[in-house]
Amino acid sequence: MCELYSKQDTLELRRKHIGPSCKVFFAEDPIKIVQAQRQYMFDERGDRYLDCINNVAHEVVKAAVKQMELLNTNSRFLHDNIVEYARRLVATLPEELSVCYFTNSGSEANDLALRLARQFRDHQDVITLDHAYHGHLSSLIEISPYKFRKGKDVKKAFVHVAPTPDTYRGKYREDHADPASAYADEVKEIIKEAHNNGRKIAAFIAESMQSCGGQIIPPAGYFQKVAEYVHRAGGVFIADEVQVGFGRVGKHFWSFQMHGEDFVPDIVTMGKPMGNGHPMACVVTTKEIAEAFSSSGMEYFNTYGGNPVSSAVGLAVLNIIENEDLQGNAIRVGDYLTKLLNKQKAKHTLIGEIRGIGLFIGIDLVKDRQKRTPATEEAQHIIYKMKEKRVLLSADGPHRNVLKIKPPMCFTEEDAKFMVDQLDEILTVLEEGIGAQSESVISENAPCRAKMPNEAHSLEWLDDGTLDPRENPSRKRNGLCTDKHSLLSKKLKT
Amino acid sequence: MCELYSKQDTLELRRKHIGPSCKVFFAEDPIKIVQAQRQYMFDERGDRYLDCINNVAHEVVKAAVKQMELLNTNSRFLHDNIVEYARRLVATLPEELSVCYFTNSGSEANDLALRLARQFRDHQDVITLDHAYHGHLSSLIEISPYKFRKGKDVKKAFVHVAPTPDTYRGKYREDHADPASAYADEVKEIIKEAHNNGRKIAAFIAESMQSCGGQIIPPAGYFQKVAEYVHRAGGVFIADEVQVGFGRVGKHFWSFQMHGEDFVPDIVTMGKPMGNGHPMACVVTTKEIAEAFSSSGMEYFNTYGGNPVSSAVGLAVLNIIENEDLQGNAIRVGDYLTKLLNKQKAKHTLIGEIRGIGLFIGIDLVKDRQKRTPATEEAQHIIYKMKEKRVLLSADGPHRNVLKIKPPMCFTEEDAKFMVDQLDEILTVLEEGIGAQSESVISENAPCRAKMPNEAHSLEWLDDGTLDPRENPSRKRNGLCTDKHSLLSKKLKT
Repeated sequence: MCELYSKQDTLELRRKHIGPSCKVFFAEDPIKIVQAQRQYMFDERGDRYLDCINNVAHEVVKAAVKQMELLNTNSRFLHDNIVEYARRLVATLPEELSVCYFTNSGSEANDLALRLARQFRDHQDVITLDHAYHGHLSSLIEISPYKFRKGKDVKKAFVHVAPTPDTYRGKYREDHADPASAYADEVKEIIKEAHNNGRKIAAFIAESMQSCGGQIIPPAGYFQKVAEYVHRAGGVFIADEVQVGFGRVGKHFWSFQMHGEDFVPDIVTMGKPMGNGHPMACVVTTKEIAEAFSSSGMEYFNTYGGNPVSSAVGLAVLNIIENEDLQGNAIRVGDYLTKLLNKQKAKHTLIGEIRGIGLFIGIDLVKDRQKRTPATEEAQHIIYKMKEKRVLLSADGPHRNVLKIKPPMCFTEEDAKFMVDQLDEILTVLEEGIGAQSESVISENAPCRAKMPNEAHSLEWLDDGTLDPRENPSRKRNGLCTDKHSLLSKKLKT
Repeated sequence: MCELYSKQDTLELRRKHIGPSCKVFFAEDPIKIVQAQRQYMFDERGDRYLDCINNVAHEVVKAAVKQMELLNTNSRFLHDNIVEYARRLVATLPEELSVCYFTNSGSEANDLALRLARQFRDHQDVITLDHAYHGHLSSLIEISPYKFRKGKDVKKAFVHVAPTPDTYRGKYREDHADPASAYADEVKEIIKEAHNNGRKIAAFIAESMQSCGGQIIPPAGYFQKVAEYVHRAGGVFIADEVQVGFGRVGKHFWSFQMHGEDFVPDIVTMGKPMGNGHPMACVVTTKEIAEAFSSSGMEYFNTYGGNPVSSAVGLAVLNIIENEDLQGNAIRVGDYLTKLLNKQKAKHTLIGEIRGIGLFIGIDLVKDRQKRTPATEEAQHIIYKMKEKRVLLSADGPHRNVLKIKPPMCFTEEDAKFMVDQLDEILTVLEEGIGAQSESVISENAPCRAKMPNEAHSLEWLDDGTLDPRENPSRKRNGLCTDKHSLLSKKLKT
């Protein structure tokens, strides 16, 4: 394959010129990808990888080229593409949501959503969910516990963190009579306390399904109840569909639509799959909120947002979703994959829960099914082993123990079968090795796992059952308790 | 030309589905552009316009297509394009500036620059220039007096506004012995007062030449002095090159380089022309600042930033700048254009000052050369008349009286001549009509101009010297003092 630099040189140039905060996948042994086609990626040696990560794939070259050759300019000139795309886009949404603002990234969209919400009734406070991630901008890190709890930043006074409506690992679980109400009541309490402190709620923001937070699907009815409380407080409901929109759930085009027709967010943000790799994103809201924003007199201008090329790309994506019946595919392949994974759950005690809808699935790995202790190191081990088997997966969630499956929408049943077969093999070897069947070998001693670094690290399985000689004793404090499971060694790149 | 909708339908769909805060150029009679080639744009009737506005043009289709067909994915996989582009980009900068973070827009870049600056020494305050515009994100509106003074937002306590180093209209003018020191001393004073209040300066941020602020070129030596004071306070100097970078000034690749080799910003942000229309932008900084950012443990991930397609586009742009000697062209055509415009200044009293470097030029229009009263309405009138003559110009600055010339870099001497000829005709007619030669006809009564709306509006010249019958009396309070210059009529879309 055509390379400009050897992999080693690429790595060195990257270390030299790209900010060290920009991490690569598989930090221990990063992949160099030179080509991609549908759900497959190819490295510099031509090795093919099955892609279960890229919810931002690419397949709309022709439309982009055609428009690029004709014209690209900013939205201060009239152009058909932007209005045609807006028309098509709002047709996928409830009628109330009719006004679009185009941006270049989900982050820009969420930032604008906050501005719209704050302008609406001049309230400032934001309720966000624990472990939420809404983007890399200053204003979004402030409302992203997934980020601000890792950095030096502290929670600002205008930010209120509600518990994640996680019925597997959260405060109210599947055995609770009405977890939706219980979690919504937490939001109600937050509002009450904010009011007692003289604060005013501008918005509640949540991904319709939490992605970085660990593939969490909120219980039915939760959003309706939250929206009711938030509206009563004069705030708006922002549904962040950046990662989970555009048909990924199959039955619906937008994930929030799973909650029923009686639930309509006031603002919806969207991004990633929208341009299938082309930088484009959008905020859609009601006429009322748009007019309140406009009445401030402040213009909103986004140089590239909604430009003719981006809009052409967006239209092509909508056409492909429709013409290739990608929503139908998400239902079929998603159901099939979930079935296969549930069989794996029956077989492997490391799997605590399979959850998800359509092509958005999480595998929650546990050291202990009763205690639901997150199997963080095992998850990291598995994604590296999967990579060796040429399947790209990622692990996320607050404990980084949830395998995330969110592949390109053209993923097939064969791909699903192949992926699960590889996972089966890895889990089998892993469970045999660490004796996970007895559910006691891997330490549950919390302090030993307390200092997990942010980046990916690998567990290397050694057949002879000894510690990896490369192991550096000074690193031990960050990782596993070697006394309890000397069979596992690790390499941390911190 | 191929249209999907009639212009009227396009307009209606836009009103229906695109946020009303998103303004079009020439609001009174917007242009529909369906095609563009180099410095020309074509409307739906095939009419050709000379483009003096688009510092974000488009000419790199081939590179984008080639890479799109191959692969587009995020920067968590290794790829040659991102590192090759970073290598080429930092080669245009002083050696200290070696670490890149790729984003999708100048706004994202400036937001990240603030994060880098704040993380560096854990200081929070930012010094910005009056009339500055640094982007559309929440964090940037906070430091953009150009924006926050128009909206409901108020200046935050951590923001300090220094006077714009404008030697034509500012606090210290061309007749001052040392305006650079005088303006820098203002920054020194701000720092002193901030320290007295227990505050700490994270950054000074400025465009190397202020664009929205009215094409302001800071006096030589100003940046050096400011950098010295800011460094002494533990802050960093952020040069915003989003609008003015990439060879526009001709003699240098970056505008800040005009200040000499002894001036090196700590952070440089870039965008607009970087991808010639493709959404891409970048922050470049020193190793020291990058490492401080990384040490926080917070990862920076930008889904599309530095993706293989964007990087390929960026490389193509660099090649074109070099191969077509666009910097040389900016010098040649810029000098020629400035010469022509200075001749116009000698001829037309409406022109107060011609300022600029390379293909970044401002024409400051005045009602009165002594008092330098901004000729706001005239500027609006001229850009509409220029549009009729198929030349696209914009007017900006705090008084919206500065004609901005920042055309595509392939602008020719013929284009310059054509543009100036049209301007000459319009100025001649306008000055004859309003009797500007006497420098007294148009009111200088400030309250009459106090409530200028944000958006573009037009003055329609009526040959019979009467008020436009469409004039709505209720609108008069926002516009001209009709008693003093009944020859001018106006139409305001508010």
